[in-house]
Amino acid sequence: MINIVIAGPRGNMGREAVKMVERETEFKLQAVVDRRNNGLNMKDVEGMEELDVPIFEDMSECFQQVACDVLVDLTSPETGKKHMLTAFDYGVRPVVGTTGFTDDDIKELSEIAKEKELGALIAPNFAIGAVLLMKFSQMAAKYLSDIEIIEQHHDRKLDAPSGTAVKTAQMISDVREPKKQGHPDEKEQLSGARGAEYEGMRIHSVRLPGLVAHQEVIFGGEGQSLKLRHDSFNRASFMPGVKLACETVMNLSGLVYGLDQIVD
Amino acid sequence: MINIVIAGPRGNMGREAVKMVERETEFKLQAVVDRRNNGLNMKDVEGMEELDVPIFEDMSECFQQVACDVLVDLTSPETGKKHMLTAFDYGVRPVVGTTGFTDDDIKELSEIAKEKELGALIAPNFAIGAVLLMKFSQMAAKYLSDIEIIEQHHDRKLDAPSGTAVKTAQMISDVREPKKQGHPDEKEQLSGARGAEYEGMRIHSVRLPGLVAHQEVIFGGEGQSLKLRHDSFNRASFMPGVKLACETVMNLSGLVYGLDQIVD
Amino acid sequence: MINIVIAGPRGNMGREAVKMVERETEFKLQAVVDRRNNGLNMKDVEGMEELDVPIFEDMSECFQQVACDVLVDLTSPETGKKHMLTAFDYGVRPVVGTTGFTDDDIKELSEIAKEKELGALIAPNFAIGAVLLMKFSQMAAKYLSDIEIIEQHHDRKLDAPSGTAVKTAQMISDVREPKKQGHPDEKEQLSGARGAEYEGMRIHSVRLPGLVAHQEVIFGGEGQSLKLRHDSFNRASFMPGVKLACETVMNLSGLVYGLDQIVD
Amino acid sequence: MINIVIAGPRGNMGREAVKMVERETEFKLQAVVDRRNNGLNMKDVEGMEELDVPIFEDMSECFQQVACDVLVDLTSPETGKKHMLTAFDYGVRPVVGTTGFTDDDIKELSEIAKEKELGALIAPNFAIGAVLLMKFSQMAAKYLSDIEIIEQHHDRKLDAPSGTAVKTAQMISDVREPKKQGHPDEKEQLSGARGAEYEGMRIHSVRLPGLVAHQEVIFGGEGQSLKLRHDSFNRASFMPGVKLACETVMNLSGLVYGLDQIVD
Repeated sequence: MINIVIAGPRGNMGREAVKMVERETEFKLQAVVDRRNNGLNMKDVEGMEELDVPIFEDMSECFQQVACDVLVDLTSPETGKKHMLTAFDYGVRPVVGTTGFTDDDIKELSEIAKEKELGALIAPNFAIGAVLLMKFSQMAAKYLSDIEIIEQHHDRKLDAPSGTAVKTAQMISDVREPKKQGHPDEKEQLSGARGAEYEGMRIHSVRLPGLVAHQEVIFGGEGQSLKLRHDSFNRASFMPGVKLACETVMNLSGLVYGLDQIVD
Repeated sequence: MINIVIAGPRGNMGREAVKMVERETEFKLQAVVDRRNNGLNMKDVEGMEELDVPIFEDMSECFQQVACDVLVDLTSPETGKKHMLTAFDYGVRPVVGTTGFTDDDIKELSEIAKEKELGALIAPNFAIGAVLLMKFSQMAAKYLSDIEIIEQHHDRKLDAPSGTAVKTAQMISDVREPKKQGHPDEKEQLSGARGAEYEGMRIHSVRLPGLVAHQEVIFGGEGQSLKLRHDSFNRASFMPGVKLACETVMNLSGLVYGLDQIVD
Repeated sequence: MINIVIAGPRGNMGREAVKMVERETEFKLQAVVDRRNNGLNMKDVEGMEELDVPIFEDMSECFQQVACDVLVDLTSPETGKKHMLTAFDYGVRPVVGTTGFTDDDIKELSEIAKEKELGALIAPNFAIGAVLLMKFSQMAAKYLSDIEIIEQHHDRKLDAPSGTAVKTAQMISDVREPKKQGHPDEKEQLSGARGAEYEGMRIHSVRLPGLVAHQEVIFGGEGQSLKLRHDSFNRASFMPGVKLACETVMNLSGLVYGLDQIVD
Repeated sequence: MINIVIAGPRGNMGREAVKMVERETEFKLQAVVDRRNNGLNMKDVEGMEELDVPIFEDMSECFQQVACDVLVDLTSPETGKKHMLTAFDYGVRPVVGTTGFTDDDIKELSEIAKEKELGALIAPNFAIGAVLLMKFSQMAAKYLSDIEIIEQHHDRKLDAPSGTAVKTAQMISDVREPKKQGHPDEKEQLSGARGAEYEGMRIHSVRLPGLVAHQEVIFGGEGQSLKLRHDSFNRASFMPGVKLACETVMNLSGLVYGLDQIVD
């Protein structure tokens, strides 16, 4: 049984994390740390889950009063670092989902974690499906080296291609020799038809109302194709990543940056 | 029972047509017209199906000797017209799969068909799946007007987008008011990512070894998407179109150009 | 410009309908009819859209005070009929999205609509994407008669197959001669692998967390396949159907039951 | 540069292997071993590729006359073992694509390979795409444990589910705790709708004309889904596996059985 405290329980991610921790039998939610409602219980606050779990405004006080193995911090970039330091003081292992850490921050926090022999994880995102897709793409590229990426998002998205698509292409390029794909003499009758080029790969961005966030990586080889697709619909999709982080951090000694470092 | 003669039985299309006519119980293959092996029987010629079906080099002689309702002509553009005229002379309804007819040819042949009250069909292609895809796309566009087309072909194809993709976009444009899709301020970080533009629609061309010929039309609307996809693997895919043509031509009086005219 | 009144503006469907009517330039939202907040304005009520649109509790009073061409009724089965009768009294054309009408109700309402020469539409659901999918399936089945349906839903769904999948299979059966699909000697090594049988077609039901509501109809023919897929994510997906109903009802004279009757 | 000899160059696999070895610049085809045409050259034999490559009927003679690093043996189970022994005698590393080896055979061949410090590989199949799909499925199952498999084949296939689908499910079961999927109270209105059960997973088998060999593994998690799909069209799809084997066998010392052992 891993005892967990969640900071930021009213945000989008925080709400999902509360539900996940409650659902998993290996976890026990001991308390939440919030900016209001000090001393109350979750079940007494409108809009919170009906749980018999105490609310603290001060993290130190929280750690003094309840047993805690892992702190899941889903607050803001400003408070993330402060919370990590407090966690380390109390021998608690932090899992932090906020961005905005500088290289110096990470170096400093790594040293403390190492010295105290405590596991810690900072993840700019917890989308384990997307992390798996990138990892598998990198593995498959070694054997099937002709690759195109189709990413599909709602039509309110401003940039194309998506950051995830570009990161996937980068990861593939790390293991694949650069190659020009398609017919050497191919010709676009309509400009842009063949998509964006990235080290010889092609990336296509679809934008339509009704879509959410989808990515497909297609590998072609003589007589076959391999297609890897991830569909992400909402923030609940981050929870398997948070769960994995909570489990893994118990067996780590030191700080890890990025969910892809603990997926194998 | 419809009596059928096939001209061009050794070509790719012709071979498939022989198999299809044999398979369908409503059809009876009475003879084939070929440029060689006059007077022989299919089963005596190496490389032909083992069928007890006579071979003629001369079409008139063929029509004099066997009963024939429909001529399926899968020869060359040069002989297609000549064969149609012979068919009309003998009261046979021609189904012709060759291209290269001029407008004058078609006008002339239409008049003869009308005068003789004979059905006739010329189809530049018989891919009924592709015809259905275009027809459905046109219907759906009336209700879900944000549309992107993804066509995927082997990497030996020179032109992008495919002719079918452009024709599909044209057919959609015939019923859809022009509209700019995507976010008004969207920006390509990598040029070409958003594909080719056609009257506000986007067309994306994937080229990979292993692929054959595939087309997907995606319609997005708030909270939903509709996706129509056709995969074509080989010339056997044209046979349902040939079959439909043979059936339909029996009930036509006059010449029809294009398979889409008889699909409903 | 079509003047519209919406009854039931605080329900899930009602909220989406308010947004849709506001978005479409051909429509003007003249008023909403609700069970509370009589005499107030939508923008004064917390939780409602910030619109300068009056709220009425009584439908007759509403029709006396504002111009209205079409009533969009998204209330309960109990009030739907009453609202339709009031609409007819004031020469307003009703579009009703509630179920629970008896055959007698429909007969009675049809006669009034006919007599008053007013268009009216009752639709048990407005999912136009699903209606199109069924219609296209029926059309395609005439040419490609080997068909399997794969429907995919979240794992809280109790029944399998889904009602939509069965209805799709029924509609296909209406136009397709019954046929046994697959190899005559095929054998299930694991029971259930080949799915449920419906007039020779096969239906497969996938249930997984993360899925919402998806249906795929696959048509196979020699050398090709055609795949039609609809993904439905939320109630916003019903709005193109409501929009179509509002437009169509202006040109109807008499009552129509079912969205599929007005899609072509 | 790796010098290669291919045994069985006129079979389906052999023909594809000849083309692959010619295409890859790191490989050089030194000779082929066939049951006929001893002393001739490939370009002189009708039906063979136009290559200036000698043909031998006797493998020992072949190895005496041309430089050879790797023997690609695509003959029959009977001759596979004999060819391996000859290869070992001449210090050549064998890549063998035939089945039918007994456990004793493999033990004996392993010992010789080890003693001679020669790499060797026997692969019952070379479908690298399928091997990757299984491997990725196993990895993903650790994080997203609700899984259904949809395999799709042409309608001449007798057994359902496919061997690959069952093997995939087995490999997943090796890493996944058994779990009942779907709603505990779910009910099949039509028997078989939910597919075959395998350790709680569901497998669905689609059989349609026009399909070839396709497999999809779908992983569902809250708010997301991950879909891995492999399409196999013909024997050319085995060539990336043969290529990998030829490269890997150069760095092996001893016998490896199964392509999955060398994919990482």
